[in-house]
Amino acid sequence: MSDLTNRQIVLRRRPHGLVAPDDTELVVAPAPRPADGEALVRMTYVGIDAAARTWLNDQPGYLPPVALGEVVRAAGIGEVVETRCDAYAVGDVVTTLSGFQEYAIVRDDVFCTPVTDGVDQLAVMSIYGPTGATAYFGMHDIGRPKAGDTVVVSAAAGATGSVAGQIAKIAGARVVGIAGGPEKCRAVVEDFGFDECVDYRAGDVPAALKAACPRGVNVYFDNVGGPILDAVLGRLAAKARVVLCGVISSYLTGEHPGPANYVNILAKTATVQGFNALDEWGRFDEAFAALREWEKQGLLVHRETVYEGIESCVDALNGLFTGANIGKMLVRVG
Amino acid sequence: MSDLTNRQIVLRRRPHGLVAPDDTELVVAPAPRPADGEALVRMTYVGIDAAARTWLNDQPGYLPPVALGEVVRAAGIGEVVETRCDAYAVGDVVTTLSGFQEYAIVRDDVFCTPVTDGVDQLAVMSIYGPTGATAYFGMHDIGRPKAGDTVVVSAAAGATGSVAGQIAKIAGARVVGIAGGPEKCRAVVEDFGFDECVDYRAGDVPAALKAACPRGVNVYFDNVGGPILDAVLGRLAAKARVVLCGVISSYLTGEHPGPANYVNILAKTATVQGFNALDEWGRFDEAFAALREWEKQGLLVHRETVYEGIESCVDALNGLFTGANIGKMLVRVG
Repeated sequence: MSDLTNRQIVLRRRPHGLVAPDDTELVVAPAPRPADGEALVRMTYVGIDAAARTWLNDQPGYLPPVALGEVVRAAGIGEVVETRCDAYAVGDVVTTLSGFQEYAIVRDDVFCTPVTDGVDQLAVMSIYGPTGATAYFGMHDIGRPKAGDTVVVSAAAGATGSVAGQIAKIAGARVVGIAGGPEKCRAVVEDFGFDECVDYRAGDVPAALKAACPRGVNVYFDNVGGPILDAVLGRLAAKARVVLCGVISSYLTGEHPGPANYVNILAKTATVQGFNALDEWGRFDEAFAALREWEKQGLLVHRETVYEGIESCVDALNGLFTGANIGKMLVRVG
Repeated sequence: MSDLTNRQIVLRRRPHGLVAPDDTELVVAPAPRPADGEALVRMTYVGIDAAARTWLNDQPGYLPPVALGEVVRAAGIGEVVETRCDAYAVGDVVTTLSGFQEYAIVRDDVFCTPVTDGVDQLAVMSIYGPTGATAYFGMHDIGRPKAGDTVVVSAAAGATGSVAGQIAKIAGARVVGIAGGPEKCRAVVEDFGFDECVDYRAGDVPAALKAACPRGVNVYFDNVGGPILDAVLGRLAAKARVVLCGVISSYLTGEHPGPANYVNILAKTATVQGFNALDEWGRFDEAFAALREWEKQGLLVHRETVYEGIESCVDALNGLFTGANIGKMLVRVG
């Protein structure tokens, strides 16, 4: 194990907008050696989440910014190849906050979970990890859809939105997605089973929402913020619940117009709630059990968009902002 | 009773901005006669609320717009002078949705409450009516301040804000008001007992809020929306609760910029909730009992700004938007 090389994507300069070629550097280093209480994991997939882009900005968040010279932060899944602790055996599959690199050290901490029941690794990244937990807690705890509700989900073809919308369908709601372009809208309806999908690139989103949601919007699961959030606020039904899960429209620059229709939060006596699934860490088992049961019953599907090789991580990350993925964006490593 | 005259303020034209002289007309008509099941009330005070201005716009709300030719809608308090029902006796003091007029017909409906326990009529308008209930339910149910919290209240010198802030003080919070001008700020601190008051006319509100709320804002009770809401969203503490009670900054024109700091609702996993106290009608007794107990203990005071004569109703209404009132704005009738 001593002569493994580890290819890493390291932050060199803070990006403005999409990540530019000189913002990161591919560094080839020896793989780290596990100390006592640690294990070495060879990554299978690195997960590409919009949150990773926010960590490149020099702004406070629920995690600190990635420092210049550090590996770009990301969650991934891989296999233990060397161990110096009791928690993990060689061959164990674990998820961890690996970053954009081929090998990572794991310890028995919050971001490292052994995957022991034979679940497919793609399913872990899409459902039985933070992405699925985010969809579950946002929709189940905050959205609380019931039969007959109209539920709208933005970034509906994305990793979180596609799962969130399916959870609302399972609850008996009419579910309307918002996505960009005909291919995604087709996937939202045909693959993920939404009732309808509004193509925000096709033009007048408020008019399309009015047509799709004639009785207003009872639950909105928002991944994007910006003008689409504004449009949905303009269609809220009385006592609506708005789940703020992401603000991808502002992640590239940190700039964003405010939604003028915020006055509807008052007029419709609605609730807008931001959340972070990590606050519910102690209930992840609950989420995964529910999701697993639905998947077994054929009520919940997942899709992934997979790029190849650690060197494609930045392209994959940029792709989240240019609409390149359906389902979870992943990079297959090694 | 047959030759009583009733002076009424009738809507003639929908106002833009402040109500202009030709937007309303003072009409002198015979006082209405009560039918079976009704009583005639001679108004003592007409309450002047910002909501009344919204009802003059041709926009849907929780009540329909006032039609052209109708008396301007408002809540008031008065004394029964003629009765043809069992519910009210001559001499009873009742609150009702009287409108801007000197006499009103009451029926046993949701907006008409007999005031039977000798409570001062000014106190009813300030505390033991929809204004006090609004402050109570917004702060008690949604804001839920606890000892050590920092609570911010906008329009803090106003009818609702002054009561809401006192409720937060009773809960043990540090309470910071926002008001316009030194006279109001003095009243907020000296009369209503807030810990501090930010004068939004004095300049940099975000900087003043930062100084007044160094650990962030746990609860924000908002009566104004607009740039002040935006500034407070920029100072939210983790898990903050924002109570949307009013959007007075948008009532005159219906136009309003959105708050760019809405992204903080996600970043701070905060909750923003709009509410209408009338939804809690069945719990008004709970609110009034709590408020009464606090008033008896000397923990809750009320103030009023009183204009004279029904003809001053429009000036009083405009005054809400130009900063003319401390405490509840009322017009004394007759």
